[in-house]
Amino acid sequence: MRFFANPAQAGHCPGFEFFRGKRVPCFETPERFHFVEQALREAGCVLEAPAAFADEALLGVHSARYLEFLKGAWAEWLATGNEGDAFPAVWPGAGMRRDRLPQNFAARMGFFAFDTGTPLAAGTWQAARSGADCALSAAQSLLAGELSAFVLTRPPGHHAGIETFGGYCFLNNAALAAQALREGGASRVAVLDVDYHHGNGTQEIFYARPDVFFASIHGDPMTEYPFYLGHADEQGEGAGLGANLNLPLPAGAPAADWFSALEQALEAIAHSGAEALVVSLGVDAWEGDPISRFRLKTRDYATLGERLRRLGLPVAFVLEGGYAVREIGLNVLACLHGFEPA
Amino acid sequence: MRFFANPAQAGHCPGFEFFRGKRVPCFETPERFHFVEQALREAGCVLEAPAAFADEALLGVHSARYLEFLKGAWAEWLATGNEGDAFPAVWPGAGMRRDRLPQNFAARMGFFAFDTGTPLAAGTWQAARSGADCALSAAQSLLAGELSAFVLTRPPGHHAGIETFGGYCFLNNAALAAQALREGGASRVAVLDVDYHHGNGTQEIFYARPDVFFASIHGDPMTEYPFYLGHADEQGEGAGLGANLNLPLPAGAPAADWFSALEQALEAIAHSGAEALVVSLGVDAWEGDPISRFRLKTRDYATLGERLRRLGLPVAFVLEGGYAVREIGLNVLACLHGFEPA
Repeated sequence: MRFFANPAQAGHCPGFEFFRGKRVPCFETPERFHFVEQALREAGCVLEAPAAFADEALLGVHSARYLEFLKGAWAEWLATGNEGDAFPAVWPGAGMRRDRLPQNFAARMGFFAFDTGTPLAAGTWQAARSGADCALSAAQSLLAGELSAFVLTRPPGHHAGIETFGGYCFLNNAALAAQALREGGASRVAVLDVDYHHGNGTQEIFYARPDVFFASIHGDPMTEYPFYLGHADEQGEGAGLGANLNLPLPAGAPAADWFSALEQALEAIAHSGAEALVVSLGVDAWEGDPISRFRLKTRDYATLGERLRRLGLPVAFVLEGGYAVREIGLNVLACLHGFEPA
Repeated sequence: MRFFANPAQAGHCPGFEFFRGKRVPCFETPERFHFVEQALREAGCVLEAPAAFADEALLGVHSARYLEFLKGAWAEWLATGNEGDAFPAVWPGAGMRRDRLPQNFAARMGFFAFDTGTPLAAGTWQAARSGADCALSAAQSLLAGELSAFVLTRPPGHHAGIETFGGYCFLNNAALAAQALREGGASRVAVLDVDYHHGNGTQEIFYARPDVFFASIHGDPMTEYPFYLGHADEQGEGAGLGANLNLPLPAGAPAADWFSALEQALEAIAHSGAEALVVSLGVDAWEGDPISRFRLKTRDYATLGERLRRLGLPVAFVLEGGYAVREIGLNVLACLHGFEPA
C-alpha cells in the first residue's frame, strides 16, 4: 500500500466557524491530520508527497467557474476590503436564480457555498489543491498496478459537489480519484462512502453516470448533516439510474445494522462491474465520535478492511471525517491493516 | 390617509447580524420605526393600531409549513439547547433536494433562509405577525373606500418569499396587502417596489399570476443585494407572463434615470388594469443612504408621491428599507404628502 500525504494541509487553518449563531473553534483541524500521520508512522508506513497534476485534471469533477472562484477567492476577499476568514452571508434560496452568476464577490461566495462551517482562509486553496494531487497520485498508483493506496489529507472532500463547498470540503478527493481511474482505463469504478455523513458531493457528481457506482452508509439525513441529500430513494438519474445506493441508518443504530448495510453495499458493488474501488474513509461512525451517532468500535474498522479486501478490487482509501482525537488514527490504521495485514 | 403602526415591532430586536465573517450591529433596528413615527406625528398624522386577522389570512401568500416554522422557531431554538438569536448555518446548495423538509431544526431553518443577516429573536414572530395585521388593515381600509393608507412597520417584508426569510424580512407585508385587495374584490392589483433592493419575495409570490402586476426599480442584482433575482429578463411565467417588470439600474445611477424608469413602471401599471396599488416604500434610494447607491433627494420623494397620485388608484404604502437616520422619516413623509398634500 502506498501512502500519499498532503504537504500543504496545515495552510488551511481557519480560526473559527459559525455554529448555531455562535463563533466556535473549527472541528476540522490540522491536528486530525497529525493523529493519523502519527499512527501510520508508528506502524512503519512510508508517507510520500504527491505528484503535481495540472488544474485540468480537476475539470472532470468540478466546473471551471467554481475552480476559478476557489483559486482566487482569498485574494478577492482581501481586495474587497475584508480581513480574517471568508464566510458566505447570502445564497440563492428557494425561488431564486442559479442560472446567472453575480459579479459581487459575496454573492459568488454564497452561490457556491452551502454552510457557514466551511470558512475559506489564506492557505485553503493550496491545501485543497494539494489534497487533490494526493488523490490523483493514489489513482495513478492503482493504475500502475498497486493493490491499494491511502490518501492522507485534509480538508476532506466528499461533501464538495460539482460547484459547491461545505461540510469542511472544497475539492472532492474521492471523486477525483474515481474519475482519474476511469480516465486511466478502468471501465467502471465504484465509490463506497463509510463516513457518518452522507457524501452528497460525490453522489451529485456521478448521479447521472452509469460508469461510477456510488454507495453510502450514513446517518439518516432527516436528522443528520448534510440533511438535504442522502435518502434511500435517490437511485441515480438518466443513464445513471441504478448506480446510486444510499443506505441511511437512524442515529444510534448498532454496529450489526451498519454491517448489514455494508454487505448490501458490497454486493451491489460486486455486481456493478467495477474494476476499482474508492473508499471515502471517514471514521466518525466510531462509537466515541463526539459529533456523530453510530457505534462502531476500532476492531470493526479492521473487519471493514478485511471485508473490503475480499472484493478483490484495487482500492484507493481517502480520508474524510472523524473528530480530532487519537482514535482517529487508530481507526484508520485498523481499516488499512484489515485490508492489507502488516 | 390612514396610518397603521405596528405595536409589536420593538420585540424584533436581534443583537447582531453576520456580515462578511463578522458579528456586526443590525442595520434594521427599532430606531428606524421611531424616526418615521416621529416625522408622522410631527406632521399631525394619527397613527392607529391594526385590526387582528386570523393566521389563515396569510395563506394566500406564504406556505403553511413556513408559517408553522416561523411561529414556533424561537421556542424550538431554545428547546434544542440554543441561546441568543437564531441564525441559519446550513442550507440546500446546488444539487441538493428541496422536495423533502428535514426534521432537524437547524436544517429546517436553513431550508427557509437565504442569508445570515436576518436573525430570528424572541419577539420576531409577533413583530412580523403584527406587521401583517397592519398590511391587512391597510388593504381593508382601501376596500372600505379610503384613497390611501400607510403601513408603518418593521421588520420589512419585500424580500420574504412564499417560504423564505432574508434581507431582514419574514412576512411579505406588501404581498399580503395586494392579496387582501384581490380577495376583497379588486380584479387586478399592482405592486410598485421603489426600495433600492429588488423585491425578490414579492416577485416570487406573484410570478405565475396575471392578477397581480409587479414592477420594481432597483440596483442591478449583478452587483447589488439580493443578487439572485431582479434581472430585466424576468417577465413572469405561465399565466403571469408579462405581469412582472424589473427595471434594474446600475449602482450610482442619477435621479433622472430613476424617474425615467418610474415613468415606464407607471405606464405599465396604468395598462395593467389594476384597480388598486401597493407601494413597497423603501426610502434607501435616497442619496444619503449608507448602504445603497442611488441618488434621490428628499424632494424627489415628494415628486414620486405626486406622480403616484396621478395614477388615480387607491394606494397602500408599505414601509420597506432605508437606514436608521432622521431622513428616513422625512423621505417617507415627503412621499405621502406628495400623494396627499396636508
